[in-house]
Parts: sequence; C-alpha cells; structure tokens
Amino acid sequence: MPDRELPIGVFDSGVGGLTVLAALRQRLPAEPLLYLGDTARVPYGSRSPETVLRYSERVAGHLLSRGIKALVVACNTASTWALPALQETGTRHGVPVIGVIEPGVRRALAATRRGHLAVIGTEGTIAGGRYTSLLRQLDPTVRVEALACPLFVGLAEEGWIGADPITVMVAERYLDSLRGGPDTIILGCTHYPLLAEAIAAVLPGACLVDSAQATAEATAALLEGARILRPGDRPGSMRLLVTDNPERFRRTAGLFLGTSAAPGAPLDIELVDIDEQDHQRWQRFEAAS
Amino acid sequence: MPDRELPIGVFDSGVGGLTVLAALRQRLPAEPLLYLGDTARVPYGSRSPETVLRYSERVAGHLLSRGIKALVVACNTASTWALPALQETGTRHGVPVIGVIEPGVRRALAATRRGHLAVIGTEGTIAGGRYTSLLRQLDPTVRVEALACPLFVGLAEEGWIGADPITVMVAERYLDSLRGGPDTIILGCTHYPLLAEAIAAVLPGACLVDSAQATAEATAALLEGARILRPGDRPGSMRLLVTDNPERFRRTAGLFLGTSAAPGAPLDIELVDIDEQDHQRWQRFEAAS
Repeated sequence: MPDRELPIGVFDSGVGGLTVLAALRQRLPAEPLLYLGDTARVPYGSRSPETVLRYSERVAGHLLSRGIKALVVACNTASTWALPALQETGTRHGVPVIGVIEPGVRRALAATRRGHLAVIGTEGTIAGGRYTSLLRQLDPTVRVEALACPLFVGLAEEGWIGADPITVMVAERYLDSLRGGPDTIILGCTHYPLLAEAIAAVLPGACLVDSAQATAEATAALLEGARILRPGDRPGSMRLLVTDNPERFRRTAGLFLGTSAAPGAPLDIELVDIDEQDHQRWQRFEAAS
Repeated sequence: MPDRELPIGVFDSGVGGLTVLAALRQRLPAEPLLYLGDTARVPYGSRSPETVLRYSERVAGHLLSRGIKALVVACNTASTWALPALQETGTRHGVPVIGVIEPGVRRALAATRRGHLAVIGTEGTIAGGRYTSLLRQLDPTVRVEALACPLFVGLAEEGWIGADPITVMVAERYLDSLRGGPDTIILGCTHYPLLAEAIAAVLPGACLVDSAQATAEATAALLEGARILRPGDRPGSMRLLVTDNPERFRRTAGLFLGTSAAPGAPLDIELVDIDEQDHQRWQRFEAAS
C-alpha cells in the first residue's frame, strides 16, 4: 500500500488540468497535490495518438519516480489515448490511476433527462471517440453527438471568458448544430468550464457537465476504498511543476485555479526537465523496480 | 561548396512556414525544396527561448544530416531565438542559414512613408524584440510598436480567413491601439498572411509587409551570390516532412501553400522521428564532421 502522506499526482499538457486540481483541492483539502503541466509539449489535443501516449508515459513516469500515491490524468486527450497504458504502469507500482472521462460520463448519464447527450472537446478527444463509446456502453439507449471546438482552448487562455462577445460568436459557430438537440453537454476538455457562460448562452436549458468535479468525487472514493486518504485535517500542500515557461504558466494559472489558489500567496511553480536524460532515468527506475 | 543539386531546407514549427515555401517555389521554380514542420512540438510561439533553441537545433540538425545546400528558418519565433546558433552550425557545415526577420525588416523600411511601423506576431516573437531592435538599428529615426496576437494562428488554421466576421472582430480587439498610427505593419508570423484581409479591414491604408516574399528574394540573392543556384529549368521537387500527425498537416497545408501546390496532385508528406535516438545520431554526425 502506498504511503498515505505521499501526494496525489495530477497531470495535464498545460494549464487546463488546473480546473481538476481546483476541484480536488476543494473536495480533499487535506491531501498534498503534485501537478505537472507538460508545457514544453502542450497542446496534446491536436497530436497523434502515438505522440500523446509517448508524452503521457514520460510525464507519468516522472511523477511516479518522485513518489505519488495515486495519479489523476487531468487531460481528456491523454485520458483518451493513454489511460489503459498508464493504468498498467500504475498497477505495476501499486499506484491507482484515474482519468477524467469515466467520471464525466457517469455524471452525464445521471443528469440527462431525455437520453440525448453531446460531448465537445479537442480534435484528439473527439477523434478518439472514448466518450461516445463509453456512454453507449453504459447505456445503449442514449443518443450521442460529438463536436471538436479547437479555438476554445485559445479563448480560455486569453481570458476571453464570461459573456465575451467574441467567445459567444465562436460558440455559436461551433455549437449551432446542437441547438434544440441534446439536453446534456459534456465539457470534454478541462479548459471548457471557463467558457460555460458562453456555451450556456448558445444552448440555454442544456445541462453542462464539468468532469473536474466528477473526477474529484471519483478520486475521493478511490482513495477511501484503497484506505489511503491522508489522516488528520492539516491543509495539504499544492505544488506545481511545468516543463517550460513557468512565467507564462503563472500568468494564466489563476484563471483556472479560481479561488483554490490562496489569494496573494505566490504559487509554488517549479521548472523540470523531463526530456531525454530524465526519460532514461525513468527507464532505469522501471527496469530496477 | 555544397552540391547545387541538393535541396533548400526550410523549417517551421508547423504549417505556417508553408507560406514561405510557397514564395520560394514561385521565386525559385527549379530548386528542390525540403520542408520540415515540427508538428510534434508545435507551437513554438508560446515556448521559452531555451526550448525554442533546443527544438530548432534538433530540426536543423535533422535537415543538415539529410543533405541541404541552404537552410531557411521559416518561423519567426525560431528566427528570434535560434538564428545565431543555427548560423554558427551552418557555417561549420558550409551551409548558409537565413531567417525571416531581416528580409521582412528591410522590406518594411523600404515601404514606410512616415517612418511609423508596427510588428505583430506570436508571444515569443514579440517578447524577443528582434524586429524592433533590428528596425531601430537599421534606421534609428523610426517609431516602432509591437503587439502579440496569440489567437491569430488558431483562426488561420481553422480556415476562418478572408473577411470572416469572427476574425475581423478578433483583429479589431488586438489591433485597436494601432488605428490611425503606423503606416506599415510587419506580419511577423508566417500564419498572418492568411489573415491579411481581416487585418486590412481594421487598419485600412496601412501597408502590410509579408516577409515570405522578402525571404524568398533574399534566399535567391544568397544562392546566386554563393553560386549554388541549381542549373537548368526543370521544375524542382517539393518534399514535406512532419514529426507528427501527417493527416492533420495535409488538411491544413493547402490553405497555406495556395496555388504552389499542384491542384489535385497529392502532397508528398513523410512522417519522421527526430526525437531522442535521432538526436543522438545527429550528435554523432556532428562529432564525426
């Protein structure tokens, strides 16, 4: 059994996964959290499955070699293409691995009233079709649509959120075909909760499912089931690692962390190199363990 | 002296440099062209200087090890952070290296009527300040402004070009402070020529400088000066290499290549791995030469 004092590892290609980190911080305030944003290789959403798998394995390997008790894949594209491989690696090290797709799907199925759902996400997530197949597998009667909205990530990172007229106009163009259709929309990209207002303006009445909260719930249940919740109620630490450009990460992180970042307190952000040499170190670690 | 039958190597982080490739094809129809888009690591525009340098050296090394007679850095961010290092490497191998910044700057200085210029580009290009410093160095009397327009790349890749109302609205927001100001605008990102119509709608009367054509001119002069123009007038080949996701590259390439891609003829696109192993091979090549 992993040490209960170890942090929960969380990773994403960039800042988007911070919406999941914020939900984890809120749901599990005593847990230490160790986040890695692979900003040297962001975005994963437009890369091939093989490349997403390769990058995800490298990041997960880095977090495992630092010592974590559980791993949350807070990136929809990585959850799409790399989750089975990462779960296999996790099992070898006795570390449970959880993605964002299944929690989001379960919450969406609980929320839908007419069994008509849509998932929106990056090109990679939509092309991968994991949301669609899991929804149909868990409930063969549902009707599902899927749409890629590539510009949403850039709009969120620019901070053009809320009812920004440009973002609403982009949402209108992407989501026009869903008007009057699905009653439940899965935000299948960790950036999209920032655009909820614009999406709701185009699809009023639809239930928007944010998988960040669902994933935090599922993580809590997992830690409880495995009896590795951290005892006591001292606030857990929150540490952020990035593979490039910590200054840029710092500028956008606040938008995504929301109130879970202590206002005024500087974020603890460290630049790490997980490139070649580090990967070789991980391979030696793998071979030795 | 390099073999005159060797191709001109051209690289960018992704598809944007194809605007430069198209200008080269038009200006130098007999030259074989070998393009590499580093789509496994695109975009360079939001990365740190160190990372852009590391990625650029890897890509240039790959092209040099394949055999090229000249190297065109068709990426503003790579020209900003990596050009001096790449020129040093090129000199060691007898291969001249040219970037997009100086040709664009010279053309802009020839075009300006009132000596008031602006450069627009990615975050990395603008933060690097190479355009601004070179403009001031070549003409200390000019007044220069510089603005990053991060969403322009995504808009161009979505194909929301021409007078698309969303693109015009984004251009209005980014460029509002330039209205009634500069008479000459340097498009300091290889994607931006696709957005020329929207930019012109916001800044009517301004002269838009596309460095692709200026770079093609400068490359022709360079080859002529070094007496390595390919003899004869048989049409030169055009070969495209990418480090990830050739399908996605193929979908957007046409937009950027314009009429220089033979209509109907399939593009010759090859997926190459320039990651670790390949980089080690390049280092051995470097050590041996």
